[in-house]
Amino acid sequence: MELKLETVTKGIEPVSQEWRMKARDYLKNLAIPQGSLGELLNLAEQLAAIKETLKPSVKKKIVVTMAGDHGVVEEGVSAFPQEVTPQMVANFVAGGAAINVLSEVAGTRVIVVDMGVAADLSELVEKGDILSYKVDYGTKNMTQGPAMTREQAKKALEAGIEIAGKLVEEGVELLGTGDMGIGNTTPSSAILAAMTGCSVREATGRGTGLDDVALENKVRVIQKALEVNQPDPNDAMDVLAKVGGFEIGGIAGLILGAAYHKVPVVVDGFISTAGALIARGLAPNSVDYMIASHKSVEAGHKYMWKELGLRPLLDLNFRLGEGTGAAVAMNIVESAAQVISKMLTFEDAGVSRNV
Amino acid sequence: MELKLETVTKGIEPVSQEWRMKARDYLKNLAIPQGSLGELLNLAEQLAAIKETLKPSVKKKIVVTMAGDHGVVEEGVSAFPQEVTPQMVANFVAGGAAINVLSEVAGTRVIVVDMGVAADLSELVEKGDILSYKVDYGTKNMTQGPAMTREQAKKALEAGIEIAGKLVEEGVELLGTGDMGIGNTTPSSAILAAMTGCSVREATGRGTGLDDVALENKVRVIQKALEVNQPDPNDAMDVLAKVGGFEIGGIAGLILGAAYHKVPVVVDGFISTAGALIARGLAPNSVDYMIASHKSVEAGHKYMWKELGLRPLLDLNFRLGEGTGAAVAMNIVESAAQVISKMLTFEDAGVSRNV
Repeated sequence: MELKLETVTKGIEPVSQEWRMKARDYLKNLAIPQGSLGELLNLAEQLAAIKETLKPSVKKKIVVTMAGDHGVVEEGVSAFPQEVTPQMVANFVAGGAAINVLSEVAGTRVIVVDMGVAADLSELVEKGDILSYKVDYGTKNMTQGPAMTREQAKKALEAGIEIAGKLVEEGVELLGTGDMGIGNTTPSSAILAAMTGCSVREATGRGTGLDDVALENKVRVIQKALEVNQPDPNDAMDVLAKVGGFEIGGIAGLILGAAYHKVPVVVDGFISTAGALIARGLAPNSVDYMIASHKSVEAGHKYMWKELGLRPLLDLNFRLGEGTGAAVAMNIVESAAQVISKMLTFEDAGVSRNV
Repeated sequence: MELKLETVTKGIEPVSQEWRMKARDYLKNLAIPQGSLGELLNLAEQLAAIKETLKPSVKKKIVVTMAGDHGVVEEGVSAFPQEVTPQMVANFVAGGAAINVLSEVAGTRVIVVDMGVAADLSELVEKGDILSYKVDYGTKNMTQGPAMTREQAKKALEAGIEIAGKLVEEGVELLGTGDMGIGNTTPSSAILAAMTGCSVREATGRGTGLDDVALENKVRVIQKALEVNQPDPNDAMDVLAKVGGFEIGGIAGLILGAAYHKVPVVVDGFISTAGALIARGLAPNSVDYMIASHKSVEAGHKYMWKELGLRPLLDLNFRLGEGTGAAVAMNIVESAAQVISKMLTFEDAGVSRNV
């Protein structure tokens, strides 16, 4: 059954406070000094609250890497040429990219989705190597007008929702987000600046490795895009359409779909977290289902996490995307699930309590 | 062949700078923006330098959890009674402790070693559930004189060396340290204060959960132990004997053994890092083989990492020990090994470079 965007955004419930409290009480009885597993205990509470059980399972995992291109690359905002987007999609399929090898360690599958790559990927789609929810061959240059139409934005969001629904139906217990798209830190910074109190300068970083001159140019490009389009911060769909990207819309939709189906979703880096801001704008309760994977080197990322009120699990100086941070964080999420599901209590283990 | 302590400390070589540079050059060709996998790339370099290959493997892992008791608990330095040490050893054997469930996620084995528990564990030893290198039934109260004799300190160190040697012979590619011992943050803080510029107050934390009054008492106890014993900061064996512990000696020995055999060793929390300080004191090159797992909540831990010049991989507010931080960090170490061993280069993946 095809889910409409509005059905999903209105249908996302806050997680169960009752189960969160049950989990908190239960975790106090584990045979460890109170609170001594820190963030794992917070995560275990969140998983219990999402899945409404004291034995949450996250063994069946998947990272969904959404790919798309950006018309704004015409403005010289990336150190890499646009052809790298389809080249990297091919690398994901070949299994030679960072997300592939990190997913192996994390015990997670990866699927790649063409949300709007500016190249014909139909051969890969036909072979079943990637999914296609292609909205268009790249967005338009957002310094000249909206990156996409409102209809396209909705289509991107509903693609993510549909993918999440299918994966949940297949039994996936933990979702992760990922992105590929040359130039996509530019719309992500624009979303951050448009939706929060962050200035364009604070929101803008070096992406794949800009020098000082190119960084100044990128700031000007984003400022121009915001001036030309005047996105409405209270209308996340408007922000996505005017200064977003197809893969960012897909990621936002995936998060919304996960939340609707009560499945936790590990949010990757800067681009994915821009998607999370859009998802939060459309359905504030969706934040309850998000797990912050890592703090990126990309300058604006910390402001995004702050805005969402989430503490990233890792700080390993990543700035790659693809879902790499989500994949590495998934082991920590699984660790938290194991702690609440399998550890013995003081009573069961026959261990004396503190005096 | 039994290895003598001096053979090992003199035999530990610095890691290969040639292989480190080879790895650095190689990693620059991976199809990612330069440096965008942050700490994973540094780790990958270290693994390549230790193992002298561009395809380091760390699949065969083990966490060695060393248990011991401390005479200084008479002074009221712990929130838990001493009987918890053997009770937790039994919990490790039953598989219900944090280290057990976290090791499962990390794909690592755990072995438990009785280095000096103040209880008869011979039944567990006979059943093959734990190893015994018991030096004595707990250390002496270090506020009254040395915690152990110099001979006992040597015995503890050589036990760790022997264990490392046997595990390496069995094919273990990555070692992790762990500890269990009620009261053992007290000797660990004493070691930190004795060997570095850290004051006793900076070095002393709340352990398993002391209140303010008990914390003040703990500071006084450590000050007294240092005054009574006057450990020589330039003689790590003297520090270990006077204000250390049997499990801390075992951990130091394990690290030395790992370094001697050119195997990386993931150092766990506050107690393990006290062992690392002893190891560094005996053989400065051993630091090259250490991987810092996490930053503990325990107050003095950050000073230990600073002293060793190591950046911890994780900051998850753990303060448990057992090897839990090492286990969770092992996935990150394995991720680094995969990155250098399996990712494709720009050339092999057919991806364009930045302009």
